[in-house]
Amino acid sequence: MLRNQFFRSQTVFAGSKRFYSVRKLAELDASKLIVKQVSEKSSPKPNDQLVFGSTFTDHMLTIEWDAKKGWANPVIKPYGNLSLDPASCVFHYGFELFEGMKAYRTPDNKITLFRPDMNMKRMNKSAARICLPTFNSDELVKLIGKLIEQDKHLVPQGQGYSLYIRPTLIGTTDTLGVGVPDKAMLFVINSPVGPYYKTGFKAVRLEATDYATRAWPGGVGDKKLGANYAPCILPQLQAASRGFQQNLWLFGPEKYITEVGTMNVFFAFKNSKTGKKELVTAPLDGTILEGVTRDSVLTLARENLNPNEWEINERYYSIHEVAERAAKGELIEAFGSGTAAVVSPIKEIGWKDSLINVPLLPGEQSGALTKQVASWIADIQYGRTKHSNWSQVVADLN
Amino acid sequence: MLRNQFFRSQTVFAGSKRFYSVRKLAELDASKLIVKQVSEKSSPKPNDQLVFGSTFTDHMLTIEWDAKKGWANPVIKPYGNLSLDPASCVFHYGFELFEGMKAYRTPDNKITLFRPDMNMKRMNKSAARICLPTFNSDELVKLIGKLIEQDKHLVPQGQGYSLYIRPTLIGTTDTLGVGVPDKAMLFVINSPVGPYYKTGFKAVRLEATDYATRAWPGGVGDKKLGANYAPCILPQLQAASRGFQQNLWLFGPEKYITEVGTMNVFFAFKNSKTGKKELVTAPLDGTILEGVTRDSVLTLARENLNPNEWEINERYYSIHEVAERAAKGELIEAFGSGTAAVVSPIKEIGWKDSLINVPLLPGEQSGALTKQVASWIADIQYGRTKHSNWSQVVADLN
Repeated sequence: MLRNQFFRSQTVFAGSKRFYSVRKLAELDASKLIVKQVSEKSSPKPNDQLVFGSTFTDHMLTIEWDAKKGWANPVIKPYGNLSLDPASCVFHYGFELFEGMKAYRTPDNKITLFRPDMNMKRMNKSAARICLPTFNSDELVKLIGKLIEQDKHLVPQGQGYSLYIRPTLIGTTDTLGVGVPDKAMLFVINSPVGPYYKTGFKAVRLEATDYATRAWPGGVGDKKLGANYAPCILPQLQAASRGFQQNLWLFGPEKYITEVGTMNVFFAFKNSKTGKKELVTAPLDGTILEGVTRDSVLTLARENLNPNEWEINERYYSIHEVAERAAKGELIEAFGSGTAAVVSPIKEIGWKDSLINVPLLPGEQSGALTKQVASWIADIQYGRTKHSNWSQVVADLN
Repeated sequence: MLRNQFFRSQTVFAGSKRFYSVRKLAELDASKLIVKQVSEKSSPKPNDQLVFGSTFTDHMLTIEWDAKKGWANPVIKPYGNLSLDPASCVFHYGFELFEGMKAYRTPDNKITLFRPDMNMKRMNKSAARICLPTFNSDELVKLIGKLIEQDKHLVPQGQGYSLYIRPTLIGTTDTLGVGVPDKAMLFVINSPVGPYYKTGFKAVRLEATDYATRAWPGGVGDKKLGANYAPCILPQLQAASRGFQQNLWLFGPEKYITEVGTMNVFFAFKNSKTGKKELVTAPLDGTILEGVTRDSVLTLARENLNPNEWEINERYYSIHEVAERAAKGELIEAFGSGTAAVVSPIKEIGWKDSLINVPLLPGEQSGALTKQVASWIADIQYGRTKHSNWSQVVADLN
């Protein structure tokens, strides 16, 4: 019997929902939305004054959850402070997770979300992993749509401009025993944002980091938990003190490349014998964030790159391979991928006592593929090209 | 030059304070305390109604910090909700850490803190690791003393009863960029608590866990960060579903024993050939919480146990060693150690398809050493015996 019990533990994370099935009474229901509007709408800031995540729209969405009642009625109300008991478990035990997604204005003046289903799926996985309540993804997308509709005049216009959307889920149980939260709050706040790099791309310098470890097998590095972020700031400061903008996170004695800063990372190589090129990123083995942009890059590369020229691989690769292939002239490009910057070109990597140079186009701040990938994604995000159902209309400005 | 730069990174955590030296303007200063009292003091609850961390005293301590100004004047005010911007980095990126300590009533009606210097030292280490502000430990102990003084009538009386003290530090920067917090709040809330086990000891059953990993080298498992707690709840639920109260956290291919639940853990063996006994716990290698109770157990065992009979070791040991020695009859005791339960005896460990039995005294819920250790510590905590400067008087009820 014990053998069976332990066998089941192999699927522990997939099977975690059953802990909630007895408790989840009222489902999240967008039709029960209550809207309390601001008395006076604010005016949009000029585009050049938008700083990532520091200006917010007029309204926010909050939904309380209680183990005995389930999800309460969703409320859209004026943006304002949360009032929480100081014993709330979000302050003590890291019961918190978030998502990052963006809404864009299309040429025909509609507002669309980019692949919201992916974010909702990941948010539910994050919630299940730390015993916070899961929810119906479609209902939350509907509610986010209503929130954007409310403040649609604040969605900025222009290439590189968008509305950054921050769904967040926190545990609000107000006792100090360490256990499953019996109260939680899901809230969404929105921030009009500009391009990550104000004047086109700006390639970054990375420090390959092996003294600090971002994630571990059997840990939570593939989930978008608050727990994964604060511990990465000190190594980033250390890298910055040596002139590098971000850490290139390595793992294990093999020094596998995993992620960069808070993004996934891609490297492109060209085999000097066969001439064949390869785009590579780390596999989703539980230590890698399941990036929506990562998935979009892989999908678009597989669809658009000539398979006679390119191989697209999710595989383990190490800083040693990168250094060796750079020395042979086989390293052709590298870039980070994430919702905030979409793609972020890399120009140099500090590794122990050497610097690995990543080629850029002459006189430019990125390689050819990086540029191409960025434009494929932007064209879909801004509605200039269509891609199956990656864009979902949530508001209409006409 | 780069070689030197990387060499310095070996001491990254020790040297992290320099990032603050330019910013830390006003120091934490207990003499600047402002006290706002409740209009009516509450009455103590009967001892049998005290549930760990669910009742709080009348007042709380809050101290704001700002990168431009340093520490603001400390404030003692009525216990009440915190009002925070929903973009505050504590909700998104895990900028939070805490301590757990206790105050006790002595036979001569004084209230003492148990080894507060150890908690303050660890709290500062936790803060430095996630780029939250550090502070003068003595000043915070003084302020905690003032807070206890304010509510001293609520410190419960009797063996096993105490005031649980929860200093907490959170980042309050209200923008979504991931970076060093420029605003923070330190707060302290106090909860009158009863004995962890209402009727003497109750030995627990553990599940040895290798599918989930609590901490890893280059991570933050030795710090008291919120990040270390939420990820451990799901494995605990899984263990509970199989009849085990806590996880015995294993690490690596060797299956080293690290901690139990949210406590440190000790095992006692008796060599069947030599008759010599050994008390063993995992070494502080960066993955083990630097427990104050752990340190107290080690110190008292080294002082009180006969070295001809006992060896006290901080060393690596695996579940395989425990299983093998249990089979040989060499496993004599095991217990967890932490502030909440002080010591927590263990009676059984589930490991794959076997159960490891841990001996208890006939008809009792603990072994002889566990009992002895618990009484050594309790005698010091309740002021019945003295130990150098482990007890610090903070209030007088006479």
